[in-house]
Amino acid sequence: MIFDPATDKPQDECGVFGLYSPTPNDLAWLTYLGLFALQHRGQEAAGMCVSDGDRFHVDKDLGLVTQVFDERRLDGLRLPNARVSIGHVRYSTTGSNLRFNAQPLTTRTNKGILGLAHNGNFVNAREVRSGMLMEGALFQTTNDSEVMLNLIARESHMDLVEATASAMKELKGGYACVLMSRTQLLGFRDPHGVRPLVIGQRDDGAWVLASEPCALYAVGARLIRDVQPGELVWFDREGLHSLMVEPKRPTPCSFEWIYFARSDGELDGVDIHESRLRMGAQLAREKPIEADIVVPVPDSGIGAAIGYARESGIPFDYGLYKNPYAGRTFIAPTQEARELKVKMKLSPTSAVRGRRVVLVDDSIVRGTTSRQIVNLLREAGATEVHFRVSSPPITHPCFYGIDTAARKELVASTHSIEEIRALIGADTLAFISERGLREAIGGSGLCGACFTGEYPAGTPLLNDVDKLALEV
Amino acid sequence: MIFDPATDKPQDECGVFGLYSPTPNDLAWLTYLGLFALQHRGQEAAGMCVSDGDRFHVDKDLGLVTQVFDERRLDGLRLPNARVSIGHVRYSTTGSNLRFNAQPLTTRTNKGILGLAHNGNFVNAREVRSGMLMEGALFQTTNDSEVMLNLIARESHMDLVEATASAMKELKGGYACVLMSRTQLLGFRDPHGVRPLVIGQRDDGAWVLASEPCALYAVGARLIRDVQPGELVWFDREGLHSLMVEPKRPTPCSFEWIYFARSDGELDGVDIHESRLRMGAQLAREKPIEADIVVPVPDSGIGAAIGYARESGIPFDYGLYKNPYAGRTFIAPTQEARELKVKMKLSPTSAVRGRRVVLVDDSIVRGTTSRQIVNLLREAGATEVHFRVSSPPITHPCFYGIDTAARKELVASTHSIEEIRALIGADTLAFISERGLREAIGGSGLCGACFTGEYPAGTPLLNDVDKLALEV
Amino acid sequence: MIFDPATDKPQDECGVFGLYSPTPNDLAWLTYLGLFALQHRGQEAAGMCVSDGDRFHVDKDLGLVTQVFDERRLDGLRLPNARVSIGHVRYSTTGSNLRFNAQPLTTRTNKGILGLAHNGNFVNAREVRSGMLMEGALFQTTNDSEVMLNLIARESHMDLVEATASAMKELKGGYACVLMSRTQLLGFRDPHGVRPLVIGQRDDGAWVLASEPCALYAVGARLIRDVQPGELVWFDREGLHSLMVEPKRPTPCSFEWIYFARSDGELDGVDIHESRLRMGAQLAREKPIEADIVVPVPDSGIGAAIGYARESGIPFDYGLYKNPYAGRTFIAPTQEARELKVKMKLSPTSAVRGRRVVLVDDSIVRGTTSRQIVNLLREAGATEVHFRVSSPPITHPCFYGIDTAARKELVASTHSIEEIRALIGADTLAFISERGLREAIGGSGLCGACFTGEYPAGTPLLNDVDKLALEV
Amino acid sequence: MIFDPATDKPQDECGVFGLYSPTPNDLAWLTYLGLFALQHRGQEAAGMCVSDGDRFHVDKDLGLVTQVFDERRLDGLRLPNARVSIGHVRYSTTGSNLRFNAQPLTTRTNKGILGLAHNGNFVNAREVRSGMLMEGALFQTTNDSEVMLNLIARESHMDLVEATASAMKELKGGYACVLMSRTQLLGFRDPHGVRPLVIGQRDDGAWVLASEPCALYAVGARLIRDVQPGELVWFDREGLHSLMVEPKRPTPCSFEWIYFARSDGELDGVDIHESRLRMGAQLAREKPIEADIVVPVPDSGIGAAIGYARESGIPFDYGLYKNPYAGRTFIAPTQEARELKVKMKLSPTSAVRGRRVVLVDDSIVRGTTSRQIVNLLREAGATEVHFRVSSPPITHPCFYGIDTAARKELVASTHSIEEIRALIGADTLAFISERGLREAIGGSGLCGACFTGEYPAGTPLLNDVDKLALEV
Repeated sequence: MIFDPATDKPQDECGVFGLYSPTPNDLAWLTYLGLFALQHRGQEAAGMCVSDGDRFHVDKDLGLVTQVFDERRLDGLRLPNARVSIGHVRYSTTGSNLRFNAQPLTTRTNKGILGLAHNGNFVNAREVRSGMLMEGALFQTTNDSEVMLNLIARESHMDLVEATASAMKELKGGYACVLMSRTQLLGFRDPHGVRPLVIGQRDDGAWVLASEPCALYAVGARLIRDVQPGELVWFDREGLHSLMVEPKRPTPCSFEWIYFARSDGELDGVDIHESRLRMGAQLAREKPIEADIVVPVPDSGIGAAIGYARESGIPFDYGLYKNPYAGRTFIAPTQEARELKVKMKLSPTSAVRGRRVVLVDDSIVRGTTSRQIVNLLREAGATEVHFRVSSPPITHPCFYGIDTAARKELVASTHSIEEIRALIGADTLAFISERGLREAIGGSGLCGACFTGEYPAGTPLLNDVDKLALEV
Repeated sequence: MIFDPATDKPQDECGVFGLYSPTPNDLAWLTYLGLFALQHRGQEAAGMCVSDGDRFHVDKDLGLVTQVFDERRLDGLRLPNARVSIGHVRYSTTGSNLRFNAQPLTTRTNKGILGLAHNGNFVNAREVRSGMLMEGALFQTTNDSEVMLNLIARESHMDLVEATASAMKELKGGYACVLMSRTQLLGFRDPHGVRPLVIGQRDDGAWVLASEPCALYAVGARLIRDVQPGELVWFDREGLHSLMVEPKRPTPCSFEWIYFARSDGELDGVDIHESRLRMGAQLAREKPIEADIVVPVPDSGIGAAIGYARESGIPFDYGLYKNPYAGRTFIAPTQEARELKVKMKLSPTSAVRGRRVVLVDDSIVRGTTSRQIVNLLREAGATEVHFRVSSPPITHPCFYGIDTAARKELVASTHSIEEIRALIGADTLAFISERGLREAIGGSGLCGACFTGEYPAGTPLLNDVDKLALEV
Repeated sequence: MIFDPATDKPQDECGVFGLYSPTPNDLAWLTYLGLFALQHRGQEAAGMCVSDGDRFHVDKDLGLVTQVFDERRLDGLRLPNARVSIGHVRYSTTGSNLRFNAQPLTTRTNKGILGLAHNGNFVNAREVRSGMLMEGALFQTTNDSEVMLNLIARESHMDLVEATASAMKELKGGYACVLMSRTQLLGFRDPHGVRPLVIGQRDDGAWVLASEPCALYAVGARLIRDVQPGELVWFDREGLHSLMVEPKRPTPCSFEWIYFARSDGELDGVDIHESRLRMGAQLAREKPIEADIVVPVPDSGIGAAIGYARESGIPFDYGLYKNPYAGRTFIAPTQEARELKVKMKLSPTSAVRGRRVVLVDDSIVRGTTSRQIVNLLREAGATEVHFRVSSPPITHPCFYGIDTAARKELVASTHSIEEIRALIGADTLAFISERGLREAIGGSGLCGACFTGEYPAGTPLLNDVDKLALEV
Repeated sequence: MIFDPATDKPQDECGVFGLYSPTPNDLAWLTYLGLFALQHRGQEAAGMCVSDGDRFHVDKDLGLVTQVFDERRLDGLRLPNARVSIGHVRYSTTGSNLRFNAQPLTTRTNKGILGLAHNGNFVNAREVRSGMLMEGALFQTTNDSEVMLNLIARESHMDLVEATASAMKELKGGYACVLMSRTQLLGFRDPHGVRPLVIGQRDDGAWVLASEPCALYAVGARLIRDVQPGELVWFDREGLHSLMVEPKRPTPCSFEWIYFARSDGELDGVDIHESRLRMGAQLAREKPIEADIVVPVPDSGIGAAIGYARESGIPFDYGLYKNPYAGRTFIAPTQEARELKVKMKLSPTSAVRGRRVVLVDDSIVRGTTSRQIVNLLREAGATEVHFRVSSPPITHPCFYGIDTAARKELVASTHSIEEIRALIGADTLAFISERGLREAIGGSGLCGACFTGEYPAGTPLLNDVDKLALEV
């Protein structure tokens, strides 16, 4: 049995990246750096395509960016006069045969060769796909990008930008996409801006699109602005073009600030690290407790723990050592896997011995990991463990690209907070309030569907098993 | 530099295989055996798909059958109640990024999931593809199978058999295909039967399709008959169905008997080994010579050499040792590659020392290898070398799935036989006559386009570089 | 070019692990867990051997523990009735041909088959080896363990324990070793206890030896005590035996507390995490500064930074994001490697913007990384950067198993502190004093040779290039 | 289950190769070519070492020559001024952990670094090893080369040539070795010359040692002579030196002519191919039969089959197709493995249909494969199958480096010829006589221990299980 010890967290599905360079550039190398910076958004597969206006190279495979692109394979993509490129990292699953679902998806169309990579989910993809199948379309993957590409190709009388705008109107959901032809780079974000996409520029004039600012910095670009909800941007020799296709009330995903996004950036004008400090402070105000130290669950709880410590005046300490090699898969006999998973990753330090501990984490999904961490702290001599969570209870699944879990697996959808507390064995348990979270993040609107069940960008019509599924 | 020492031969492009089993069978395993028997028809890539009527699994990759399908990957395809499967081996090239062109190609369509694998070539694929692109189709590969699948999917009002028959009428060229849905196996051969396809059956009732009989024997099936030129056959619970879609004058490829097909089978009623003996005998009658021994270029010249020896009365001997490991790629510095290539593969035995040698090979393409073999024999002490070839001079390229070489590289298209003789350094050089070849093979008709330039199944309209090519 | 971004740190050379189980146990699996916990001590190679009293299996290779031991290879070591095992992880280098130097080293001797793994260095290994070569010994590796094994085998009249004690007396330096025969586990530590070794026991009675307590916890054992400097311990059916072979003044390596050891343990009675908090506090007292926030260089500066923040009252903050995937090797063009190295690993958060920052790190070796981190902070808007180091300046190389760097590369051996400050571009730079460090760690004695040049366990006699070196 | 279909043959254990070049040469590349030519002598592992007089590089691993030495690893051995090199290929087993037993074995000694590779077996290795263990020697492998190296190193007062001669006197058995220091190449053959070793020279003056002449030809060298039984040769700047250490009655292994050696060479003055023709002719005279065709079991039976056909006047034909990919391991379910093994490798052609077949093979070990081949021929329509074997019945195991099988597995040691005939299902079965074989090979003496039980070079004293065995 192979397992990944880093679990029981909401899982982002993907990161996207794109480059348009008015002058020849080593785009394969820059895309490699950009994807490396976005690696936390997806560990299952990585891919990129690069064009010099004539040739159009693509390579992708299962694995981390550094595993897929060894020197030989990266060299195979290094076109000397490259102008356009896109890249993609995909989330981690245990499936090993999903090779052919890796992105970018590339295809020849009546608009020339196109490459597309997306983050997020189209909630009506199945309906659209069914209709196109009836019209004679082929679907070689189970990848939503293929639906988008079919929609674009179908509009044979339109140019690429028009056809893309038309496809944006047809597909519902939360998504951010990068799309390239031999000579253009396009990027677009769903009408509510649920998934993030930022624009950057390098000093040499090259334009960059990425899921997060960290990938801009990685290639020496500065943050210009976010792509707006419902906006379609494209880059060619003339520079940056923009079309507001279908903007609606912005509701970016709150979990980007809670957990997904790297703390060294900002999204939609809100700094990630600072918002986490504010979540922690808010939590301290909402759910105070008398204790000796504040301990984060590393690394995702660090920001909120510092905020909690500062607001409460309780000293921050490093009470859980995190094994930096724990992200790597390792062998585990089934029966022991549960306990080992956490134990090989996290280990208490002497800081917790004889102390009343406030343990701060960003979220609780199933609760299994939380129980084991509480247990580890108690075994190490913590006299009290007060669990504080910088997100509200997760009660509903996400349909916009986040793999939380089936609803019945979400501990907060079936248990009261007191029941969860008992389950994980904490002395007290408290979550930040939804209102408190919105205040801590700030901004005009947020998607909190997983806390509230209110889905701003719609839900799938068909929930039955996809009978057309091609198992590859 | 990596090279394959086994070159300067016409190169078959593929082998196909299919199974329909009325009762549950271990089809992944049987398909593995069938593909292993067809390995000589393609060494670049291997793949298969298997269905149990519900699930539809596919796996494919670059490499030999035994390299692609290790135990783990084969196990991933072993559906307990499998009913239908197809498989494919693809020819050897040096390209390493052609992973996504491997077959079978699988796709969801309005006729359910389909898997298709083909051997051969559609000469009008580009025109058909261009038209469909304009209608909004996507082409994700440069694989002709994708054109066939689009044609089948386009006929949304027809069932799978009707739509396949319709597609057969639209595509021209020389081909043999296996096609599967979750519940049916189909096979079809071009109107002239240029590429081979045979039908077999196991004692347990399972039906088998394969490029050659050896693959039937490998899975314990007996040869029932050849698929007829222009025939579409399909298998379901009721058994074998047949439809003559567009039969024309049969002209199977003569090179299957000369070189490609394994000597342990028969195609279109003509035994491979016996036809080679007859070619050698014919050659001895047409082009006799006084000599001491007849030596084959192993392994492809063995049959004709035995035939030549028997007819001429000159003793057969084993004058060239063939290194069984020479098929494996090995490293070679560029400057030495030419000479090394042959030298590491073939080595003269003492049989040729002081002897007048009749050297028998099946064909000469560029002539470079032939020159080196003649040279090896002379260095080993052969006093005379008389080169005899069991095919006529190759003067034209093949458009039906054989990678001969560009026309200008075909030594016989630009040189007289006397010039070739001088080039390869033989004392005499003679080829079998076209008429003699036809007599030796027998049968009603043969494609000899590469000798005559007469293409029974048409030629491509567009010969310019495919500007839509997606380099993957 | 391949590089490991995690550099410019002293590099520990190895971790060792051993098990003796009075009852049959899954020792391969337990050793795997123990080595996984010790992975931070060596990433180049991993190995283990296991015996059931009769069979003696060994496997080792280049790579991380989880890379070397996939399921198949671990299964090959899982003897059902295993009683004794040892394991080893080796430090990271770029060499790829060092496969045959991996440990444990196994050999047949007149005392039966033995397996040996060591951490540290024998300073007189070359002299001893030269003498034994003259007597007819073979040396198949450049591994010091082989010298120890030859010494043990040479004493053919002694039993294993006596011969090991004899060898301990002959070899000088700083080392900790685990040694096994088919039925015994031995462990020993150099006379000064420079390198660590701890003893643990599981509830089922199994005895454990490990470089650090974390490996005991990983296999469910509790810490019993440290092996004493100069002590030889061994385990058999009767339990734990001890012999004080040559105890001298204990001088354990101070860098175990400063940097190497995981913060979730204690060595020689001194808790790692607490000692780091004390180092930070001591540094704050010795080298105070007026500033807005205290920022650690993650992860190694965290403990000292918390200590500094608490003592100084300046808020602790998370000012540098560390990419958890940065430990993986990635491709870098030579010219850009320097800057990229740090940039892809560390990225400033908004915490430093407009702030006066106290930056806390554990050590400075060459200073190159430090300069880049300071630069990153300034680019991110830090108004002042005050660099504080929780170790004294490193001025001398280590001869006891730590790969610092050649003396001329140690920036502090050739530059004044003011020169280093200018070099790294900090506003102020200060190191903990040697006395302050000793107080912070506590304990009776410490090896601080790299700060002072006083080598308690001797230095190598011969420094010229080893002319006998076998390059493998 | 993984199996190699090419079995039921005596298995040679190794091939050795060595080069001494008075001028700088690309010895790694030449050694690669030499080993490639010797690949038939061992498929389990390959290795080489190269020296330029100063550096001494070695690399080796499990796999074929072309698998072990990819471009990167070969480049790692390409010293610009290389003067001396040796190489080794090792026989095929299914064990996967035997990595550390690969050759050449390299070690530092009082005579500098040495590399040794051997073919064959020392029958008193265990006694010698036991004695040296008592004196304090380490044995890190179960490789006999290590015993030889210990003997050489023990004579610390002698130079390398003297010490090697001394070691030759001490070790008994059948062997051929190549040995190198930084500046010398040595080669030696056991007193009876059981295992072969030939000397060649290139036009540029470089000296070559190899198990067979084919490896000389592969590097552009001509055959000078065989190393004599009991002779030690060495090469340095002055050229070729020779010392007759302990010559005894020459008894080279008869199986080199029967089966092992490539047919494109000669050993001890006797041409391989011609001797096989003579064996076939002798067999035809000794054991005539009325039949329609003579069919070889390819490839090893070809020479004898041609000889048989010529002498008998019965036509030779190619009745069994051999799949050139059958040497590659493939997956097989245990229960079917037996039949599949032969079926996937050999397939009858139409030549045997309705014919009385003389089937010629070189040997029968267990008889299982023979039974299946006979069965295949009958199923294909052969009316009679007359089995003729060009070696006498194998009744005794080989102790000189050939892996026949345990005695009880040798079908001829427990069954009469008539019983074997019944077992394999042939109409008649006949072996060449021992006298006939000796006449066919010619030469002064031959080792036929496996036919006669007379072991010219001694037998092992200790046959019990080696209790010191290190399982790696």
